[in-house]
Amino acid sequence: MKMYLGFFSDNCAGVLPEIMEAISAENSGFTRPYGYDHTTGESKEVLREHLGDAEVNFMLTGTGANVALIAAALKPFQGVICPETAHINVDECGAPERFTSCKLLSVPAENGKLNPKYITKFAHNVGFEHNVQPVMVSISQATEAGSLYTVDEISEIARITHENGMYLHMDGARITNAACAMGKTIKEISGDLGVDLLSLGGTKAGMMFGEAAVFFNKELAADFKYIRKQSMQLLSKSRYIAAQFKRMFEDDLWLKAAGHANAMAAYLGERLEAINGVTLSRKPEVNAVFAQIPRSAIDVIIKEFGFYIWNEELNEVRLMTSFATEKKDIDAFADRLAEVMKTV
Amino acid sequence: MKMYLGFFSDNCAGVLPEIMEAISAENSGFTRPYGYDHTTGESKEVLREHLGDAEVNFMLTGTGANVALIAAALKPFQGVICPETAHINVDECGAPERFTSCKLLSVPAENGKLNPKYITKFAHNVGFEHNVQPVMVSISQATEAGSLYTVDEISEIARITHENGMYLHMDGARITNAACAMGKTIKEISGDLGVDLLSLGGTKAGMMFGEAAVFFNKELAADFKYIRKQSMQLLSKSRYIAAQFKRMFEDDLWLKAAGHANAMAAYLGERLEAINGVTLSRKPEVNAVFAQIPRSAIDVIIKEFGFYIWNEELNEVRLMTSFATEKKDIDAFADRLAEVMKTV
Amino acid sequence: MKMYLGFFSDNCAGVLPEIMEAISAENSGFTRPYGYDHTTGESKEVLREHLGDAEVNFMLTGTGANVALIAAALKPFQGVICPETAHINVDECGAPERFTSCKLLSVPAENGKLNPKYITKFAHNVGFEHNVQPVMVSISQATEAGSLYTVDEISEIARITHENGMYLHMDGARITNAACAMGKTIKEISGDLGVDLLSLGGTKAGMMFGEAAVFFNKELAADFKYIRKQSMQLLSKSRYIAAQFKRMFEDDLWLKAAGHANAMAAYLGERLEAINGVTLSRKPEVNAVFAQIPRSAIDVIIKEFGFYIWNEELNEVRLMTSFATEKKDIDAFADRLAEVMKTV
Amino acid sequence: MKMYLGFFSDNCAGVLPEIMEAISAENSGFTRPYGYDHTTGESKEVLREHLGDAEVNFMLTGTGANVALIAAALKPFQGVICPETAHINVDECGAPERFTSCKLLSVPAENGKLNPKYITKFAHNVGFEHNVQPVMVSISQATEAGSLYTVDEISEIARITHENGMYLHMDGARITNAACAMGKTIKEISGDLGVDLLSLGGTKAGMMFGEAAVFFNKELAADFKYIRKQSMQLLSKSRYIAAQFKRMFEDDLWLKAAGHANAMAAYLGERLEAINGVTLSRKPEVNAVFAQIPRSAIDVIIKEFGFYIWNEELNEVRLMTSFATEKKDIDAFADRLAEVMKTV
Repeated sequence: MKMYLGFFSDNCAGVLPEIMEAISAENSGFTRPYGYDHTTGESKEVLREHLGDAEVNFMLTGTGANVALIAAALKPFQGVICPETAHINVDECGAPERFTSCKLLSVPAENGKLNPKYITKFAHNVGFEHNVQPVMVSISQATEAGSLYTVDEISEIARITHENGMYLHMDGARITNAACAMGKTIKEISGDLGVDLLSLGGTKAGMMFGEAAVFFNKELAADFKYIRKQSMQLLSKSRYIAAQFKRMFEDDLWLKAAGHANAMAAYLGERLEAINGVTLSRKPEVNAVFAQIPRSAIDVIIKEFGFYIWNEELNEVRLMTSFATEKKDIDAFADRLAEVMKTV
Repeated sequence: MKMYLGFFSDNCAGVLPEIMEAISAENSGFTRPYGYDHTTGESKEVLREHLGDAEVNFMLTGTGANVALIAAALKPFQGVICPETAHINVDECGAPERFTSCKLLSVPAENGKLNPKYITKFAHNVGFEHNVQPVMVSISQATEAGSLYTVDEISEIARITHENGMYLHMDGARITNAACAMGKTIKEISGDLGVDLLSLGGTKAGMMFGEAAVFFNKELAADFKYIRKQSMQLLSKSRYIAAQFKRMFEDDLWLKAAGHANAMAAYLGERLEAINGVTLSRKPEVNAVFAQIPRSAIDVIIKEFGFYIWNEELNEVRLMTSFATEKKDIDAFADRLAEVMKTV
Repeated sequence: MKMYLGFFSDNCAGVLPEIMEAISAENSGFTRPYGYDHTTGESKEVLREHLGDAEVNFMLTGTGANVALIAAALKPFQGVICPETAHINVDECGAPERFTSCKLLSVPAENGKLNPKYITKFAHNVGFEHNVQPVMVSISQATEAGSLYTVDEISEIARITHENGMYLHMDGARITNAACAMGKTIKEISGDLGVDLLSLGGTKAGMMFGEAAVFFNKELAADFKYIRKQSMQLLSKSRYIAAQFKRMFEDDLWLKAAGHANAMAAYLGERLEAINGVTLSRKPEVNAVFAQIPRSAIDVIIKEFGFYIWNEELNEVRLMTSFATEKKDIDAFADRLAEVMKTV
Repeated sequence: MKMYLGFFSDNCAGVLPEIMEAISAENSGFTRPYGYDHTTGESKEVLREHLGDAEVNFMLTGTGANVALIAAALKPFQGVICPETAHINVDECGAPERFTSCKLLSVPAENGKLNPKYITKFAHNVGFEHNVQPVMVSISQATEAGSLYTVDEISEIARITHENGMYLHMDGARITNAACAMGKTIKEISGDLGVDLLSLGGTKAGMMFGEAAVFFNKELAADFKYIRKQSMQLLSKSRYIAAQFKRMFEDDLWLKAAGHANAMAAYLGERLEAINGVTLSRKPEVNAVFAQIPRSAIDVIIKEFGFYIWNEELNEVRLMTSFATEKKDIDAFADRLAEVMKTV
């Protein structure tokens, strides 16, 4: 029997059919390379309609978007305050440090979220030449723990960040899921609340590849074309990222895709909750489900359905859903887990 | 009238139709991300059939492939001997220096090529702690000047490079054009001649995106998975690069595409040569045509057909062809230039 | 009245008179520069008598020694596990990250010390390309909190570090104070216990400037001459560092100086303990005294005697002693504090 | 017989006796560390009297001063135009690239000097994201080839540099020799002519260690305290650099020392010129003598008097003089060489 791979990550899915069509439709004629083509222009226009008065640049990977945005805002003796669970801190193999020379000032995370008291704490280091100077705060929405900051929480973090003369970055690898779950537009949960810089994720939302580095604070974009090139994130045939973003945001495709992923997570959560001996770590907020399952059951079912063990000590697992998750696969998983649970 | 953009660069073209089909065909089901999927495995196998016993890794951009290969072979106090015209030296916005911390030891180029005497010259610095230690030689095949190293030249450079304890890197952004022009396989003009590391270009050959970092010297690949991730070159949905390379090399698609591009350059060269007052800088060797055209004629025709002025002082222009170049467009250009030349 | 500055830090003191004499005595004739002089050779020999079969290199600053040793052992995608209070983590303005590109994997500190459980925790990341690879553990002896690891604690950390294929680095900016307090030689509390790399401090021990990068693990020293030069830590007139280290270690000058500093801290601790309302955070182990003093008393006395407020919330202050601290100044401080305490 | 080492380099000499006295005299009492002491303040004041309204910071090494000044003015995607013979380009083991991430845009040197036409050439790259952006021009005064830029040449370079929106850096490792030879003050050949940033050398001028990073363009100094710390160039016991600079510049000690070194070079030049078969490459301008000597004579005399062979092909040697060079040693060398020449 083949293992089901859909719960590993949202990037185990392929590409939204609508996006794939848009890519194919883009394939004709010659264009200027490196982002000076017509489609790139149109696509940025479409994004600006969603995001407001922002500077948008297409990037290749989420790590690339995060790193280049840090590089755009910081000097090498400066640092980024972030929760210790942040993708930039644990999942990018040190790319931020290597490319930007900056230090990540990681702090204890609470359910994947940053407590703003740490901003104030690091602000005490300003002006003391022995300490890395804190200049950016980075939060992920949704977080790596599948949680969401509320509108009020983001506003409060933004306020404290700016009061201390720092910039606010949002890692939005899964911001479409977040916006959908909150019933807001992307702009309403980022730029409108004081986010200066946004890594807008395309890949996990259903694109083949491509992210956007968004500058709500346009002053920080002045040097970005050099930084993007130097960070190896400039695609020569830019039109093929542009066509994807254009299609994703020219109507509500992003919302439809995120809505499906979130609904599937909610359904998976319900199914798991109903199984005796399985405990949800918390109610799913976006497209991630965290659950505690007895180890002996994990050991059986993980051979049939792939997923990550999030916390070995707690026997907590992470199950991701995506635009491509099907209800029947959730049912298959839940039915099988219920069966296994009876035997442990 | 719309400007014709096909001569600007080979990356002004779109994607080979066969490649686009392969991408679309890849779009079903879930896979493991980050290169642990089935298609990536198959595609590497196809490449190894062409390249021999080499370690292959997929990358996102040509700059990324070059930079990550330098990082794989060098420590930060070491350097790369390269012609001053090398892409790594002039066209990557300092990405090699920034990511690897290494120094590029650039030397005068002759028609885009490296004179091996410079390798010996830098070898004198070995062991002297005040000098960057030379550890790699990098050549481009075809070169940025549209020229080709002969088999003997590459062998000689490889011999001197290895005699001095250094590694040989080849920037093969246009290696399919080179191999085709030389009537050889890629392996025969790289690994077989002593090349340790090859940046194998996909984009300019007709792919949407994707390059391959090839280790003929497999010992250097030990840490490469970390370096690729840290250099922001790891695509999560790796299957979409893999499908392209697989299609390109599972039969002679690469050769057909390169052959067309080269033939179009040859034809363009012939047409230009026949125009009174226009001089070819040299016979086209691959898919680049360099020609000297009176300035007043350049000023007229550049508004109708896009191309780069390569050398302002010499009024030398560069015209690139690709798999997508059509004979009719070359004729249109040549006819129009002939017409313009009569008026200057 | 002039403020007394001696409690700020051990580097507020000048140079041991014996060291200053040795510097003056060195000032004649010509020598080869950059460490190839006679005195450098002799001085390394003297150090090797103390340290055993180790490779020794002179450096300019403590930050420089730490950073260059990290660079000697790590590749840029690797990391250093250290307590969050480590000098490399908080007091070097990001020099480790900027020069080495490596990440510091900081963990909660307990009284300035590393709990070895964190080594095991990070060892789980080995082989996973998304995580920085942990390759070094760094501890300070004495710690930045004025505490000491016991011989058993260092041995245990070394064992776990090596079992996990990592290197152990010791920041010994104050290792003379530590060795003296433990009644051991420097070798007995570093190399003999499994320390691979030692930053051996000279400045805080009473030198004008100069530290030593010590490789008990000599394999790691292979490239160090290049790293030292590239890290801007190579002094041209090397003999003037060499003469200081030679003098410091050719007899027990280092021990005499450290012994005095430690004794002064012990005396200061006793005097403070006897003052009503003042609490020692812990018994002084080396040349640092940490005490809690009511804020209103701090506010008065800090204008007359300089020192750092270590923990604003706890009203905890740090007072350092050195070879140059005089008993009369401690008495003056304690008398004055006792007086002030009566008024608050 | 012991080899005479005085011609190897100006840093083979020890420390000016007056400087050594000043160091010893500094050794009393406690001070604030890291440059916040009284002597550092006084010393900067003395330097400002010489240099005018400039921001001065003490550094540990010449490489450190150069690198930190580049870091102060450039972003990592920017570059420094310099002659290929520049110390930053060949003698610093890649420290500029490693610490600043910037690229050195080296150009052919003419007698160690920069031809300003190259500034204009690189200015063409401004705004093109594929090229490193040129932002600084760096020249050495005196040059590494022992030559001097005239006042007019520096002014012209400064004019072109500023016209193109770039900054002018001067590597003044031997600027005291240059100023003395030109009959000018340091200010008159640097800041007054448009130099923005100066690495003011102390070590080769006769100090034990210590250089100054001088900002005539004070806007560039805003972040320098962090850069100095992060570049590992901040000495804790700063007073011992400060005391040296203060003594060097509080009267004409610098001039006396440089004058002696230059006079000794002139005398050495005269003596060599008079030897049959020995040719001066050019009249000595500062404290360096370059001469062509038959190889067989070099091979004999280099065993008795140390010096560098500058150009193996031309049998050109470099002989340096310093404040400590004695006429009798020059005579001994010249007499011995004349003797050897008779036998070849």
